[in-house]
Amino acid sequence: MSKPYVIGIDIGGTNTVFGIVDARGVVLASSSIKTAKHSNINDYIDELHGELTRMMEVNDVVGKINGIGIGAPNANYFTGIIEDGVNLPWPTPIPLAQMMTDKFGIPTRITNDANAAAIGEMTYGAARGMKDFIMITLGTGVGSGIVINGQVVYGHDGFAGELGHVIMKRNNGRLCGCGRTGCLETYCSATGVARTAREFLEIRTEPSLLRDLPIESITSKDVYDAAVAGDKMAKEIFEYTANILGEALADFTVFSSPSAFILFGGLAKSGDLLMKPLKESMERNMLKIFKGKVKILPSELKEADAAVLGASALGWEVKPL
Amino acid sequence: MSKPYVIGIDIGGTNTVFGIVDARGVVLASSSIKTAKHSNINDYIDELHGELTRMMEVNDVVGKINGIGIGAPNANYFTGIIEDGVNLPWPTPIPLAQMMTDKFGIPTRITNDANAAAIGEMTYGAARGMKDFIMITLGTGVGSGIVINGQVVYGHDGFAGELGHVIMKRNNGRLCGCGRTGCLETYCSATGVARTAREFLEIRTEPSLLRDLPIESITSKDVYDAAVAGDKMAKEIFEYTANILGEALADFTVFSSPSAFILFGGLAKSGDLLMKPLKESMERNMLKIFKGKVKILPSELKEADAAVLGASALGWEVKPL
Repeated sequence: MSKPYVIGIDIGGTNTVFGIVDARGVVLASSSIKTAKHSNINDYIDELHGELTRMMEVNDVVGKINGIGIGAPNANYFTGIIEDGVNLPWPTPIPLAQMMTDKFGIPTRITNDANAAAIGEMTYGAARGMKDFIMITLGTGVGSGIVINGQVVYGHDGFAGELGHVIMKRNNGRLCGCGRTGCLETYCSATGVARTAREFLEIRTEPSLLRDLPIESITSKDVYDAAVAGDKMAKEIFEYTANILGEALADFTVFSSPSAFILFGGLAKSGDLLMKPLKESMERNMLKIFKGKVKILPSELKEADAAVLGASALGWEVKPL
Repeated sequence: MSKPYVIGIDIGGTNTVFGIVDARGVVLASSSIKTAKHSNINDYIDELHGELTRMMEVNDVVGKINGIGIGAPNANYFTGIIEDGVNLPWPTPIPLAQMMTDKFGIPTRITNDANAAAIGEMTYGAARGMKDFIMITLGTGVGSGIVINGQVVYGHDGFAGELGHVIMKRNNGRLCGCGRTGCLETYCSATGVARTAREFLEIRTEPSLLRDLPIESITSKDVYDAAVAGDKMAKEIFEYTANILGEALADFTVFSSPSAFILFGGLAKSGDLLMKPLKESMERNMLKIFKGKVKILPSELKEADAAVLGASALGWEVKPL
């Protein structure tokens, strides 16, 4: 029988957020440490262990933790190893699941952050009861977690679901961090929106509130604020973004025929500015047999808790030690 | 306990091929009837029943059939219904699985032809032992059957895996039978290769063996024969085709990270003319973490038996009546 609580840990390039969660998705307590404070991974795990031990004691859950779930960049679900952690301060590969299991005496599973978000959404959020959906995380990059028949798709090597790197522009596409050009995430991430803003400002001539800002430091938030203030160019930047994302979602649909796409991350909170042209674009580009069948929904996880909740859901999947 | 034989039926627009298969994939007997001979579906099923009953009697397998598996266009695995059989002579929807079960007294499952091919390849062919692979059928169109974690992907509505309708050219793409433009199958099917040949012949000026043929009746087989005879333009038509298919396979890889793509159909038998530039294109377009990991393999099912074998494998999945 499983124990009544799980621990969720989200390891980002800047912060590591963690918390204790119950079976209904209530976060009993959460906190964070700086990911880059320790150049030695063992020191980092020691600090995490100290913080979480105190948290478990205060909340009276010592011995009641079923498992630890961790979301981290390039974390391989199958091997428990962070294989190439570009944004993390430690040399890779890192056998993190084993190191954490040894340190805490609690079984630990890891996966990448977008898969963790998908599991969280399925366990506690907008995808409860759905067997086939695709989580799209619109952050600094574009990530994805694909669920088919109730199971996260990991692929033969644990790295499936890199939908941010589908090629959307085969000619004259933007250079991506992956070294190729035209990837979805160069257009539809928060940074992609900022790049679009800079392109629009350079190429177009009409006035815009965005022209009051230093062009190199424009963010997707600036574009959002301008659009909300009624700026025409800012709205068109959202339409441009939505159009490409809609093309991508239509293509993804022919692969796994999901009942919904669930959008997570800052851009997903842009409301109708993004959602309205996105739904129109997806339907316009959709193969006929799928038209009108696929929902686009915003995440239902509370933002402050989402990363911890998503990771924590993995804590229900562990095998006892 | 399952019975020792299954029946496989492949319903194509022209012919319906059927046979009796054992657990090791040996086809005991096979035959065919004309699909379009009967304008009434009941008459068609009657003829099929007569032919198969005789075949079961001759081979002494009456009462020993575990199930009937059928591959047919737009056949829905979940509902057992052919929902919109564009190439079939009967009004749709057709509750084919139930009609066959009633007529034969043998449990029947149906799926589309590409999914049947994937199941056949996994049960008897090149994908034995593989848990994650994608079957690509290169015929009149481009079909696909996606297997993830040992299971065919049907999606929320039974229609997943329409990879022939991923958009490869977003500008100036070829018109597809689906009503949209730029679909993979307008470039990489047998008819796509013939279209490419016509485009090359019109736009280019160099000599080619293909210029000896009436341009409107050129087939992919003509292009293959010319390439084998050393024709430079014909070889470049294969390279053009392979380049686009390789781009598509690289995109598909980020979705489900398969260990292999298995190619089936006439074009898949073009050997190095297709395979060499295809592998090069896929690797060139591949996201770094997947480079060198994904195989491209030709189907191992004997062509004459492949359709029947693929469909028959479904006969092992049925529930007893």
